[in-house]
Amino acid sequence: MPSPEPHILVTNDDGIRAPGLLALRDACAEVGDVTILAPNHNWSASGHVKTMHKPLRVSKVTLADGTSALSTTGAPSDAVALALLGLVDRPIDLVVSGVNHGANLGHDVTYSGTVTAAMEAAISKVPAIAVSLNTREQADFEVAARFAASLAQQTLERGLPEGVLLNVNVPPLPADEIAGVRVTRMGLRIYRDELIQRVDPRGKPYYWIGGPAPTGVEEEGTDIWAVANGYISVTPIQLDLTAHNLLPAVHEWELKL
Amino acid sequence: MPSPEPHILVTNDDGIRAPGLLALRDACAEVGDVTILAPNHNWSASGHVKTMHKPLRVSKVTLADGTSALSTTGAPSDAVALALLGLVDRPIDLVVSGVNHGANLGHDVTYSGTVTAAMEAAISKVPAIAVSLNTREQADFEVAARFAASLAQQTLERGLPEGVLLNVNVPPLPADEIAGVRVTRMGLRIYRDELIQRVDPRGKPYYWIGGPAPTGVEEEGTDIWAVANGYISVTPIQLDLTAHNLLPAVHEWELKL
Repeated sequence: MPSPEPHILVTNDDGIRAPGLLALRDACAEVGDVTILAPNHNWSASGHVKTMHKPLRVSKVTLADGTSALSTTGAPSDAVALALLGLVDRPIDLVVSGVNHGANLGHDVTYSGTVTAAMEAAISKVPAIAVSLNTREQADFEVAARFAASLAQQTLERGLPEGVLLNVNVPPLPADEIAGVRVTRMGLRIYRDELIQRVDPRGKPYYWIGGPAPTGVEEEGTDIWAVANGYISVTPIQLDLTAHNLLPAVHEWELKL
Repeated sequence: MPSPEPHILVTNDDGIRAPGLLALRDACAEVGDVTILAPNHNWSASGHVKTMHKPLRVSKVTLADGTSALSTTGAPSDAVALALLGLVDRPIDLVVSGVNHGANLGHDVTYSGTVTAAMEAAISKVPAIAVSLNTREQADFEVAARFAASLAQQTLERGLPEGVLLNVNVPPLPADEIAGVRVTRMGLRIYRDELIQRVDPRGKPYYWIGGPAPTGVEEEGTDIWAVANGYISVTPIQLDLTAHNLLPAVHEWELKL
């Protein structure tokens, strides 16, 4: 008897109607059986959410290609939690989140709904991949989705250590212009946020966090460098945020009540 | 001429009316000049948010003790961003977030509004401390606030390396029952979430993420162990999430389009 196909949960933070989700589903369907459970609206820069103070709805929806999927009122990480807690009957072997419309490089990962969906899986000891396409322009998600599926296959075969997930960023290039794949470390993002004050029709101020898109330090070996040079970037990231290098120094502090 | 007092921004994720915020303000006022800018409602388990798709309001409010503070419609990390982007005129030397009503141990830090407020400061290269009291019961925040102020003093004197913040958890004990202070690493949280299905008055299902409070692996040297044994836990945590140990292994994977 052939072994059953692996079961892959596909989710995202751009919402159930995002084209990157469909492209990812199509590519992952070559690797296993896919279930989609994704937020019913965009959750960009929403962070790692666990919705505990209000209930969540789940709906069956028909996607643009006529297939079925599940959507939820919750955040991307809620979608993963719901699926892993039993809303989806069959055990899930791998979670793939994306393809996000916009990069998740450097410190972006701390804000990213795409990445925190994968974190939620890692916390539940399910291997996970987050995939983002490095453009906010009109984009073709097919190359990123195809690479994600190939990486999904490898991840299912090799596994990942507990508490680790893979964060993938893909440059917006045709397949034959991609320079290759690099395993990278997180780079330093440079945010250029600006405070913009406006006045409402009733004379009261309100504020936008505005400013141009972030740049980054293009140090060789980082995710930011890789994508800027036409490489697909794969960064293994971990749930252990301890600054281990700093432990000896902080031991020397005078810590007392 | 004496050097000016350091300027400390105090924020939280339980909202501007939370008693832990006032206790922290009072304690930090012994160390420097304090400005409060905090969310106008509770943002627990909200993650690291950057509100970019809607504007934010800021209001001057009067606290329970008659003093003034600023509140915002944004998340805790938005409050820090607003302050550092110039909403607060005077440059900020240190951000202290808390005292949170409930622990932020182990993987909690990825969800925690309290911690992500401190992360937002660290991303902007401002030293930051997150402080949480390890109980959800009625609580006295004074011991935790006092320790936070003492740590704030040390942090102002010694500084923190770029990209690092301090995550503090305090057991809910009187000062004379605190066993001491431990510099710790992040432990392993054990979540016991359960999916709870209910049916609404119109016959449609909805879902709660429920279940008992999380426990943790009480391994010596971790934050979870420290607090369980009556110690105040200080964990230096970093924005670099790269799983550096895993880079060589992932280099061996067959990564191709």
